[in-house]
Amino acid sequence: MASVMEPLPASGFFHGGEHLFPVRVFYEDTDLSGVVYHANYLRYMERARSDMLRVSGIDQREAQEQGLGHYAVAEAHVRYRAPARLDDALTVRSRVEDVGAARCVITQNVWRGETLLAEGGVTVAFVDPAGRPRRQPAEWIDRFKQLCTSIS
Amino acid sequence: MASVMEPLPASGFFHGGEHLFPVRVFYEDTDLSGVVYHANYLRYMERARSDMLRVSGIDQREAQEQGLGHYAVAEAHVRYRAPARLDDALTVRSRVEDVGAARCVITQNVWRGETLLAEGGVTVAFVDPAGRPRRQPAEWIDRFKQLCTSIS
Amino acid sequence: MASVMEPLPASGFFHGGEHLFPVRVFYEDTDLSGVVYHANYLRYMERARSDMLRVSGIDQREAQEQGLGHYAVAEAHVRYRAPARLDDALTVRSRVEDVGAARCVITQNVWRGETLLAEGGVTVAFVDPAGRPRRQPAEWIDRFKQLCTSIS
Amino acid sequence: MASVMEPLPASGFFHGGEHLFPVRVFYEDTDLSGVVYHANYLRYMERARSDMLRVSGIDQREAQEQGLGHYAVAEAHVRYRAPARLDDALTVRSRVEDVGAARCVITQNVWRGETLLAEGGVTVAFVDPAGRPRRQPAEWIDRFKQLCTSIS
Repeated sequence: MASVMEPLPASGFFHGGEHLFPVRVFYEDTDLSGVVYHANYLRYMERARSDMLRVSGIDQREAQEQGLGHYAVAEAHVRYRAPARLDDALTVRSRVEDVGAARCVITQNVWRGETLLAEGGVTVAFVDPAGRPRRQPAEWIDRFKQLCTSIS
Repeated sequence: MASVMEPLPASGFFHGGEHLFPVRVFYEDTDLSGVVYHANYLRYMERARSDMLRVSGIDQREAQEQGLGHYAVAEAHVRYRAPARLDDALTVRSRVEDVGAARCVITQNVWRGETLLAEGGVTVAFVDPAGRPRRQPAEWIDRFKQLCTSIS
Repeated sequence: MASVMEPLPASGFFHGGEHLFPVRVFYEDTDLSGVVYHANYLRYMERARSDMLRVSGIDQREAQEQGLGHYAVAEAHVRYRAPARLDDALTVRSRVEDVGAARCVITQNVWRGETLLAEGGVTVAFVDPAGRPRRQPAEWIDRFKQLCTSIS
Repeated sequence: MASVMEPLPASGFFHGGEHLFPVRVFYEDTDLSGVVYHANYLRYMERARSDMLRVSGIDQREAQEQGLGHYAVAEAHVRYRAPARLDDALTVRSRVEDVGAARCVITQNVWRGETLLAEGGVTVAFVDPAGRPRRQPAEWIDRFKQLCTSIS
């Protein structure tokens, strides 16, 4: 039986208008060239965005289960600077650049200590369960705008 | 024991300077929103590029095992137009836009029949086993240039 | 615009009560040890089962969208015999061993030519959209039983 | 530029001869049935084993880079009890059951609080860079045996 003592998954935090989220590189992330497979940076970036919502007090699973909607990626780009390797501890640094009625533009860079590994960004669109664009909840927009402008 | 009769994995082909590669959507590709997870389009695009090399008579595994080098993605971008669903038969259409000494720029779009699902592109850089940029084999460059300019 | 000529994803077939399905190994499948990451064999096996349904004329996406239900894996095991490498053409050979009211037991082995790479098996349970066990459609059971007993 | 303040990836710990490792469920882990895709439990289990090595002071990346060798999964099995969903905080509880010259047998169960979601286990074999079985470093065996017998 599970004891009461449980380890907790890593959580990110906001600092000076930026969200920081830690990622550990595991075997599953690498490919035979010995470094992290390029598509997995998009997964790291998505984990960071999910954590950003959680830390902001937004429950995306509840929003989905209640039929409110969810975010779909409308556009993504990554520029790869340096490779990540097994066991590396990375940090995804995300910044909400722009918040529209139905969209957010987010810059997301992946660092290992002082080394920039990947520069990326996504535009996410809020959509209803059928995938049609819809306005983001007003309360969420307020939170994102607050995050955009907060100072260290 | 395995019989002599074996089914063959799908193979793509070139047609009018464009490479066409088929992809089937499986459970593993989808997420809880019911459609293909956005990062997986980069995987589809990479499968198409690997097939493009194979069809061109370039053995990337041999090149890697002999220490010649391999392609690393230097940059990638995707614009998502419409979702793909379980069991969909997709086609990745790739076009080598530019071939440099150490790099190729490739446009890659994902279609389901007449519907464009995703527009993407990558820049790949040839690197040695240590990850340092190196010139692509001259013979490969010739083949790519031929592919760029071929007519239907 | 997409032309009318489209490549087709690979399809498997039944032969002597066994289902054969081809898989190509891509970069995404490997890890830094240079061979296919062990968990990906379960993905290959799932692709083969999805193909088995398709070839049998069962539309699992329609079944899911209409609220009929879907298969959930109740148990899985794999014994790894030999590694698979980039560009390998593999064959998943599946055999429905037993069909119950709500479950199927399926043996699935992965071969590269005459070499057995992995011996596996799963028990899948049919569940309703809420994840509760339910009887498989009678018509499906009939098809599976036919597949179990068919002779080469 | 990266600041000096960095969030840390989650780390597991040993407690009473058992290793506990936390996992957060992200979008990438789920499939269209709304729950975690079955093969991903093997990935969670592998992450826990990698963490177990790290916490034990064993650097598997160094071991691989120096040509010492790495662990290959020889056998794996999972029995699925209950589904995991987006945002769930899970715990992988691992126990080294047996340590041989070249192999370890490890039981690994996945919990969400007091609910057992999956019961699994693997046998891992130490192999040289060419994939041939070799004896585990004596010092590692000592550590594992210590872990096997430690008391809460």
